Amino acid sequence: MRYEARLSGEGGQGLILAGVILAEAVGIYDGKNVTQSQSYGPESRGGKSKSEVIISDEEIDYPKATRVDLLLSLTQESCNEYVKDLKEGGHLVVDATYVPSIPPGSFQVYQVPMIQIAREEIGKEIVANIVALGVITEISGIVTREAIKKAVLARVPKGTEALNTRALEAGFAAGRTAMVPKV
Amino acid sequence: MRYEARLSGEGGQGLILAGVILAEAVGIYDGKNVTQSQSYGPESRGGKSKSEVIISDEEIDYPKATRVDLLLSLTQESCNEYVKDLKEGGHLVVDATYVPSIPPGSFQVYQVPMIQIAREEIGKEIVANIVALGVITEISGIVTREAIKKAVLARVPKGTEALNTRALEAGFAAGRTAMVPKV
Repeated sequence: MRYEARLSGEGGQGLILAGVILAEAVGIYDGKNVTQSQSYGPESRGGKSKSEVIISDEEIDYPKATRVDLLLSLTQESCNEYVKDLKEGGHLVVDATYVPSIPPGSFQVYQVPMIQIAREEIGKEIVANIVALGVITEISGIVTREAIKKAVLARVPKGTEALNTRALEAGFAAGRTAMVPKV
Repeated sequence: MRYEARLSGEGGQGLILAGVILAEAVGIYDGKNVTQSQSYGPESRGGKSKSEVIISDEEIDYPKATRVDLLLSLTQESCNEYVKDLKEGGHLVVDATYVPSIPPGSFQVYQVPMIQIAREEIGKEIVANIVALGVITEISGIVTREAIKKAVLARVPKGTEALNTRALEAGFAAGRTAMVPKV
């Protein structure tokens, strides 16, 4: 078993922190092998941001995503750029507001208004990354709700625990809603 | 050219953030290819923490450290565990207080009281990771002082810029002192 998740968007959206939290949830609290990474190079100019989490039952020899199981994109530009490595039948989770145009391909698409939920329901756009973690938890099935909650609480700034818990739970709810087949 | 840095210690010492800052300094501000990663697995229980930064002139195909150029260790346990991958002639940068016992091997050893500097000179032990970044900048020569300063300021919480700048500069000074051959 190998599972590759790629979290993409732009700088300032907290995607490295989201990747670290997801990795710690799976690695420390769920006890699997995980590598979390980000790369920078000439292509990292221009504000795109990408964070990867690779989960495996065995030791991870090659910690770079090559056949992505789940791609999160919070911006259209990052979606366009990184969708190429999403595997057939993989999960594409996009922000419903900021990724209006879904690239063609045979994957399952989930359009979730994560940034709007953070801004309007929770009252802080900055927790959109935590809302996204809730959504990913539900859609991926790769981490338990219990583990992700512990990992979030261990990483967020003191005094923001309640806010981030609400963001995570709003993400769980939005993820479950997105998984209900549309009639 | 490939350069591998491994930052080790225990959870809560801010070594993932230090790795991210070093990677962003080199990748975004100095314009090289960089991958930053951390792994979790059965061995990650027990509080050890390790963050890796790999820098290259070319695209990084294998983003896992195998022949480490510089190992930072803020605890004795992490030093004992991770020194095995330090290459011959590599740089071992240890906290002078918390790593009293230097493992045998043919590498250059720098004993710097980073945690003590953070606690006593800066007044906040929590900035020991930023002091360490200053020390690493001087000893490694792999990143410019200008780039690491920009990267630190882009990542630390608002309102702590002056504190972290002082910590970084104290690290520069301590790194230079550690490089002066002892008579």
